Amino acid sequence: MVKGRLEAFSDGVLAIIITIMVLELKVPHGDDLSALGPLLPVFLSYVLSFIFVGIYWSNHHHLLHAVRHVNGSILWANLHLLFWLSLVPFVTGWMGENHFAAVPTATYGVVLLMAGVAYYLLERAIIAREGRESVLAIAVGRDWKGKLSPVLYLIAIPLAFASRAAAGAIYVLVALIWLIPDRRIERVLPEPRAADGAAAAPPR
Amino acid sequence: MVKGRLEAFSDGVLAIIITIMVLELKVPHGDDLSALGPLLPVFLSYVLSFIFVGIYWSNHHHLLHAVRHVNGSILWANLHLLFWLSLVPFVTGWMGENHFAAVPTATYGVVLLMAGVAYYLLERAIIAREGRESVLAIAVGRDWKGKLSPVLYLIAIPLAFASRAAAGAIYVLVALIWLIPDRRIERVLPEPRAADGAAAAPPR
Amino acid sequence: MVKGRLEAFSDGVLAIIITIMVLELKVPHGDDLSALGPLLPVFLSYVLSFIFVGIYWSNHHHLLHAVRHVNGSILWANLHLLFWLSLVPFVTGWMGENHFAAVPTATYGVVLLMAGVAYYLLERAIIAREGRESVLAIAVGRDWKGKLSPVLYLIAIPLAFASRAAAGAIYVLVALIWLIPDRRIERVLPEPRAADGAAAAPPR
Amino acid sequence: MVKGRLEAFSDGVLAIIITIMVLELKVPHGDDLSALGPLLPVFLSYVLSFIFVGIYWSNHHHLLHAVRHVNGSILWANLHLLFWLSLVPFVTGWMGENHFAAVPTATYGVVLLMAGVAYYLLERAIIAREGRESVLAIAVGRDWKGKLSPVLYLIAIPLAFASRAAAGAIYVLVALIWLIPDRRIERVLPEPRAADGAAAAPPR
Repeated sequence: MVKGRLEAFSDGVLAIIITIMVLELKVPHGDDLSALGPLLPVFLSYVLSFIFVGIYWSNHHHLLHAVRHVNGSILWANLHLLFWLSLVPFVTGWMGENHFAAVPTATYGVVLLMAGVAYYLLERAIIAREGRESVLAIAVGRDWKGKLSPVLYLIAIPLAFASRAAAGAIYVLVALIWLIPDRRIERVLPEPRAADGAAAAPPR
Repeated sequence: MVKGRLEAFSDGVLAIIITIMVLELKVPHGDDLSALGPLLPVFLSYVLSFIFVGIYWSNHHHLLHAVRHVNGSILWANLHLLFWLSLVPFVTGWMGENHFAAVPTATYGVVLLMAGVAYYLLERAIIAREGRESVLAIAVGRDWKGKLSPVLYLIAIPLAFASRAAAGAIYVLVALIWLIPDRRIERVLPEPRAADGAAAAPPR
Repeated sequence: MVKGRLEAFSDGVLAIIITIMVLELKVPHGDDLSALGPLLPVFLSYVLSFIFVGIYWSNHHHLLHAVRHVNGSILWANLHLLFWLSLVPFVTGWMGENHFAAVPTATYGVVLLMAGVAYYLLERAIIAREGRESVLAIAVGRDWKGKLSPVLYLIAIPLAFASRAAAGAIYVLVALIWLIPDRRIERVLPEPRAADGAAAAPPR
Repeated sequence: MVKGRLEAFSDGVLAIIITIMVLELKVPHGDDLSALGPLLPVFLSYVLSFIFVGIYWSNHHHLLHAVRHVNGSILWANLHLLFWLSLVPFVTGWMGENHFAAVPTATYGVVLLMAGVAYYLLERAIIAREGRESVLAIAVGRDWKGKLSPVLYLIAIPLAFASRAAAGAIYVLVALIWLIPDRRIERVLPEPRAADGAAAAPPR
């Protein structure tokens, strides 16, 4: 089974997810700046979710880059991840339109947590196929971000009922942690370009 | 005619179909958990359809992998399949918003049945081009899932008027049958990677 | 400038156009078959437009296949074509929701006519780049379908005000003419696969 | 990190942005030509934004073509550009539905300005990776259009409050400046096709 279509399909789904979120920014009827006021929380939640989906795309990109063989488990683990990410526009809109109310803010965390779990399962499926000695297995073993994020979500979800600001701050913190470029896999691969360069075709 | 664009276009359409379905999950106005209650049947029908479209993508992926030459019949048989799948978001929303009422549930089965018929016609178009002795023809000949599914849909469609739960259970059953990875084509091809490896370019 | 991204972007836009049209099929509130009745004209116009966009995708596929070099004129001629095609969902919805009333039906023809003109300009831009002796120039020279279609649209547009059925019949006729596989370019290229096979990479 | 997925993801997002803008063209209820009247400003703003997104796609295409290595900065600079472009459908709809009122027209300019800034940052990130002596650095150094556009936006934004027509005219002027094919990079590369031809795989 060829990896190219898995990447192409995932890119397509992620591109649509990241773009349809903007449809929740409903064009207001007024034509002055005050008309934009009620949209501010929707806009802020859009920015946050844009960054999260961007992080997933970037990490997915790295993860799949290390894959050599695709099997049925990897394919379905990938679809499972895309399923949870497909709910991000819904929870983003719900959280934004309700000005970060407790339940929507907690639900947002639940979807992020489930996406994190799905990403972990995808990593496991790939390592099961590639072998415990693979570059990926070594890189993932050191993945402190991947281990910390679900812990932070698990703190933020109940916290949303006590302090929505604190829960929101944790989501922003997780995003910031990941925005620092993910060099896990790059670091283990000593010369990624050399490995690519060995192939007949140019990297394009 | 090059296969790459047929795959890319199909991936694009399938990625959009699987993602726009989530737009039927309208953001509720309330901000507590009870606001999510009315969305439950819409959510369940979304999960079911996500799995069905995922199955079609996965099978399409396998099917096209075995194709060497694309002609006009294959191209239009493929568009015909995409047409029926493009109706999935509509029937999913209709079934979900009406809490699995009889007519929408039966209509859902009709669209799945027509997609199954279209997939069968696509297989025929490919075999007509590739030859009866091709790997694909042998693999499809043993395709008990492909033969069982339309029979199950034909049972479920009238059954929806007697028991919507029974019809729904049959749809879930079909999904479960397919979720078991489709190894039909993989099994016949003794060493798919070797076949790929013979090509100049790496599988990427 | 590499042709691959031009094809990928066009595939993306065409895949979205063909899929968002289905969003005009609004999920009805009723749960019986009579609820689908008012949707019938919208559905019929969707089927017609799905076929037209499919025809454009198929022809675009053939046309670009014959291209060796992309320049700025080709790029903008292609965007110009995509612009007119992007209006198809709008006129499809307008025509369908108004039960093929005269003005929407004529407007539908205007958009198809403009898309046909844009396709012609794209052909000209490609021939200007590839040369009058190119395979494409010879193939297009014999293009009776491309010359007949605008004539038929020009008849259908005023006819819509006299008889909407007659105008609709002409649109269906144009679609049927094109549904016969476009072998213009295939016919001139004696062995398309041999030409591809000469390249280092497999056709994939 | 492979450039292909960065291009594929960007193509996907840009294809969706350029296409969902047409959803702001709401199907009118009337069935005569006068029903299209109120849509005229929405249509005009759609045409303008279609051209702007087309320009960005075309320039992005050229820019990425010159890239050999992708790193984390380039990836996030690219996502940052896509973020601002993802707001184009929103400001397009707002400006169109309010008949080019002052605040929406100025906001439109702000989003274009921010997209221009993001494009500049992407160029910087690429030059930082490719080196100051690279083909791209030389080409960008002469980029008078890229330097003029933000100046024009900065004039148009406050001008919108005095004369919306003048601000709109400046946006059209910027579009026209860019519609002249961007030969910056093509000019510096003496024989782009030769460079491609040196690679094992055909340009496709």
